[in-house]
Amino acid sequence: MIPTNPTDPRWHTRRDRKKERLASVGHLANGLVVDTADVVPLLEAVLRPGDRVALEGNNQKQADFLSRSLAQADPGRVHDLHLLISSISRPEHLDLFENGIASLVDFAFAGAQSTRVATLLAEGTLKVGAIHTYLELYARLFVDLIPDVALVAAEKADRNGNLYTGANTEDTPTIVEAAAFRSGIVIAQVNELVDSVEDLPRVDIPGSWVDFVIPADRPFQVEPLFTRDPRKITDVHVLLAMLAIRGVYERHEVTTLNHGIGYDTAAIELLLPTYGESLGLRGKIARNWALNPHPTLIPAIESGWVDTIASFGGEVGMDRYVAARSDVFATGHDGSLRSNRMISQVGGLYATDMFIGSTLQLDPLANSSTVTAGRLSGFGGAPNLGNDPRGRRHSSPAWLSMNEGEGQLGIHRGRKLVVQIAETYGAGATPHYVESLDAVDVGKNAGMPIAPVMIYGDDVTHVVSEEGVAYLYKARDLEERRQAVTALAGSGPVGTQSTPAQRDQLRRDGVLALPQDLGVRRSDASRSLLAAKSIEDLVTWSGGLYDPPAKFRSW
Amino acid sequence: MIPTNPTDPRWHTRRDRKKERLASVGHLANGLVVDTADVVPLLEAVLRPGDRVALEGNNQKQADFLSRSLAQADPGRVHDLHLLISSISRPEHLDLFENGIASLVDFAFAGAQSTRVATLLAEGTLKVGAIHTYLELYARLFVDLIPDVALVAAEKADRNGNLYTGANTEDTPTIVEAAAFRSGIVIAQVNELVDSVEDLPRVDIPGSWVDFVIPADRPFQVEPLFTRDPRKITDVHVLLAMLAIRGVYERHEVTTLNHGIGYDTAAIELLLPTYGESLGLRGKIARNWALNPHPTLIPAIESGWVDTIASFGGEVGMDRYVAARSDVFATGHDGSLRSNRMISQVGGLYATDMFIGSTLQLDPLANSSTVTAGRLSGFGGAPNLGNDPRGRRHSSPAWLSMNEGEGQLGIHRGRKLVVQIAETYGAGATPHYVESLDAVDVGKNAGMPIAPVMIYGDDVTHVVSEEGVAYLYKARDLEERRQAVTALAGSGPVGTQSTPAQRDQLRRDGVLALPQDLGVRRSDASRSLLAAKSIEDLVTWSGGLYDPPAKFRSW
Repeated sequence: MIPTNPTDPRWHTRRDRKKERLASVGHLANGLVVDTADVVPLLEAVLRPGDRVALEGNNQKQADFLSRSLAQADPGRVHDLHLLISSISRPEHLDLFENGIASLVDFAFAGAQSTRVATLLAEGTLKVGAIHTYLELYARLFVDLIPDVALVAAEKADRNGNLYTGANTEDTPTIVEAAAFRSGIVIAQVNELVDSVEDLPRVDIPGSWVDFVIPADRPFQVEPLFTRDPRKITDVHVLLAMLAIRGVYERHEVTTLNHGIGYDTAAIELLLPTYGESLGLRGKIARNWALNPHPTLIPAIESGWVDTIASFGGEVGMDRYVAARSDVFATGHDGSLRSNRMISQVGGLYATDMFIGSTLQLDPLANSSTVTAGRLSGFGGAPNLGNDPRGRRHSSPAWLSMNEGEGQLGIHRGRKLVVQIAETYGAGATPHYVESLDAVDVGKNAGMPIAPVMIYGDDVTHVVSEEGVAYLYKARDLEERRQAVTALAGSGPVGTQSTPAQRDQLRRDGVLALPQDLGVRRSDASRSLLAAKSIEDLVTWSGGLYDPPAKFRSW
Repeated sequence: MIPTNPTDPRWHTRRDRKKERLASVGHLANGLVVDTADVVPLLEAVLRPGDRVALEGNNQKQADFLSRSLAQADPGRVHDLHLLISSISRPEHLDLFENGIASLVDFAFAGAQSTRVATLLAEGTLKVGAIHTYLELYARLFVDLIPDVALVAAEKADRNGNLYTGANTEDTPTIVEAAAFRSGIVIAQVNELVDSVEDLPRVDIPGSWVDFVIPADRPFQVEPLFTRDPRKITDVHVLLAMLAIRGVYERHEVTTLNHGIGYDTAAIELLLPTYGESLGLRGKIARNWALNPHPTLIPAIESGWVDTIASFGGEVGMDRYVAARSDVFATGHDGSLRSNRMISQVGGLYATDMFIGSTLQLDPLANSSTVTAGRLSGFGGAPNLGNDPRGRRHSSPAWLSMNEGEGQLGIHRGRKLVVQIAETYGAGATPHYVESLDAVDVGKNAGMPIAPVMIYGDDVTHVVSEEGVAYLYKARDLEERRQAVTALAGSGPVGTQSTPAQRDQLRRDGVLALPQDLGVRRSDASRSLLAAKSIEDLVTWSGGLYDPPAKFRSW
């Protein structure tokens, strides 16, 4: 046994390093406050080559003052950063790689930048550690990807660093905690600086965790990503929604759930107060949600369908509405939304009975992906929401209804409903049902160890298309699963594999339900069933509390 | 379309109710501060029959001043509470049900109270909503089990309600967030009240989220649950540890992991600096941990094995050591540990490649449970840590090494290692390998919809006994899985099902490794290999920084 010297400095290198860095920027800061104009010198002084930098940026909120400023840093001083970011959303996120400031990235979603990500990756300008689901990336911030510096955004700060995030709390507390308790340096851009804590509507993050606050040149960017204009909902979306409500929600008594952001799930939200009401389902389904404040859910909320919503983030224009519906949404004593992406993702994982979302491609075993050729878009939250959490131990009628048979040795369990909606064809007559996912080739070409599958087929319990509903959890084997998926594919290349005899057998086995089996008449599927047919209608439903962003206003 | 009145009071009933309750106790509070002596009147005034009450209490830290005081409330005023609690650990937790104050409980773990839980359940005195894994219960606090009142514990508070938790942060931020942003009432018992925020070492929870602080009659209870005395480690534990290190850690290059609290995993921790070092494994395995500050990990930390530890909770006696090892542990600027059970459970779920823990019973399909006849002990964290997170999308060598074969349609993925250690026999010659889990009958007798299985066999990838290691992830079917498990069972009732011919075939298939297959000689398995053989040795290794609790001191 050779005990070492307990005061050996190698045990607190991170703390010493922080002290040294803070000392080096003392001249730029007045207490914790740095002038807007000094942002680039601050970043250049605080950052060291090779640092892991957690930059706040998801599909909604962006610390864009800090990311724009970081892109202006001198690559001679600041280079080879390892960027940890939920979503590569802004051009300068990739400029950082082109100008040598950053070289490696771990992320969850790329969205609008997905084509450029693929290009820079192919060129070798950018290296990808891994693509994650949000919650998985947060997890790694505390275990093996601990950040050296966190760059985040808040609405307001006081001079002691106490932060008020407003409705867009989102990733901020998680990123700050990951850095603050590992002797990392936390820099918060703020829309407004106030003198003291009494001037803040509430405190979302204690000043004790923050090193610098810096007023931004303009308010942080935030995107209305979860706003779906009812005008764009088609009769086909309404048909899909009716099939889902009857064939899944009603049949399995789904009360706790998450929705994706497609027009088909928006149609479901808008059918609850009309079609759902006519079926007598209010209070029986869709009561507790893990969901952003979707404007298309306003009519269902106003009609008394919704008990609670746990939100991942805010939604532009929904602030006054949310504040006035505090029984439904999580709000602070100031009245505004507290969203928390990490907590709501945990809620979506462990506390909901169902995930339902749209997909762009589905293979015959129901593996699905939104990755298409040349675009490395990543995953976001879907893999976490769309999987069966095998650590779950509480029961519900919906969860237990997935339990087929008695199990071996007296052991059985339920299962989460993972529902994929895929029309037979998408825009431009592109088939959604394909023999093999584009993701397989994209993964190979990008040198990824596994294909970037969004949701694995063996996690999918149901698929919905205009042709009907496939109950994949009942499929006896892979062949029956394949038959059930191809039965939904319509007239496309995969659909021609399905025969009438197969479909009849699948219906007898309860693995396939056609619209008529569910009491749904195609001729009834009409936009006229939507509780709101336009953004204006949503404003009316909200009693004027919803303030849609300009781009959604037609008046 | 019938929009309702947007100012209808039914949209903010929770907020109105909170205002009314706060007003009713104004006479008891000086600002946010209530006198110790007024705790029962406070609770009686704040609580209403049927309230959901999140009471802080896990397997370590207890808000015991508040739970003891709640048990003294008048059941005529306070009754039929719905208790939400991580761990039923203290007698008064169950007194609440016997005296009618509470009637329904949702929990995760029972431990020392597990026999009484089973009795009260059978009598109908107590109703169980469900038994959860920790993270799952937290998830529901934000979705469908939102608390009306939170009762929590902190080290210190200032007069504005800012809380300092010290090393035992644990569940407190999660419980407080669940209530504070749903117009719940948050009451914190504190060991010490200080005047202002400058007098707090750091802020763990903003005062903005807290309604009342009340100095406790004595410091909150905290149990040294993760302290294992090396004296109790046997040669058999050492053998199990050697088999695990060679057969699992080394073979799969496991770098990120969680350990359970058994003596066998403690043996692994104490073999790293000796046996592990002799194998040249330092830096190659066991670097990033989701783990409490286990004293038995001190020699490995001191020997440079451990990069980082993300802790669920604190550990009694480890405060000075942790503070002096801030490169390894998460600490605040004050130097003390920040533990966070929710975040570390997420880390254990998504950021680690392996869970390894001991079990009391294993059936031939590797389903396991710590529930035995007459005891309803629950789950704690194990189901969350011991499952394959199907939402995971990042790769590692260990995770990919679980991938057998090419998969269908180009789709494959890795898998988390879930390792169960079970000696052939436990104390009193009780066989650990059984034909059917006691949990099956316990579940039936308690009227549970599914048996309380701790870890499901299909999630288990490896089993370790003195007989060798079973690589269940390689088993072709349930019959081969059964043969591999029974091959580890020794001479007990299950073990006699295993034949020499089966074992030879399993070895050829790579599904079973005997000690000699792994280069482990039984005769080498001796306590002399342990880096520390006593608590005193651990203190020496720590350079005097570890302060073991009295019950672990023999000097």
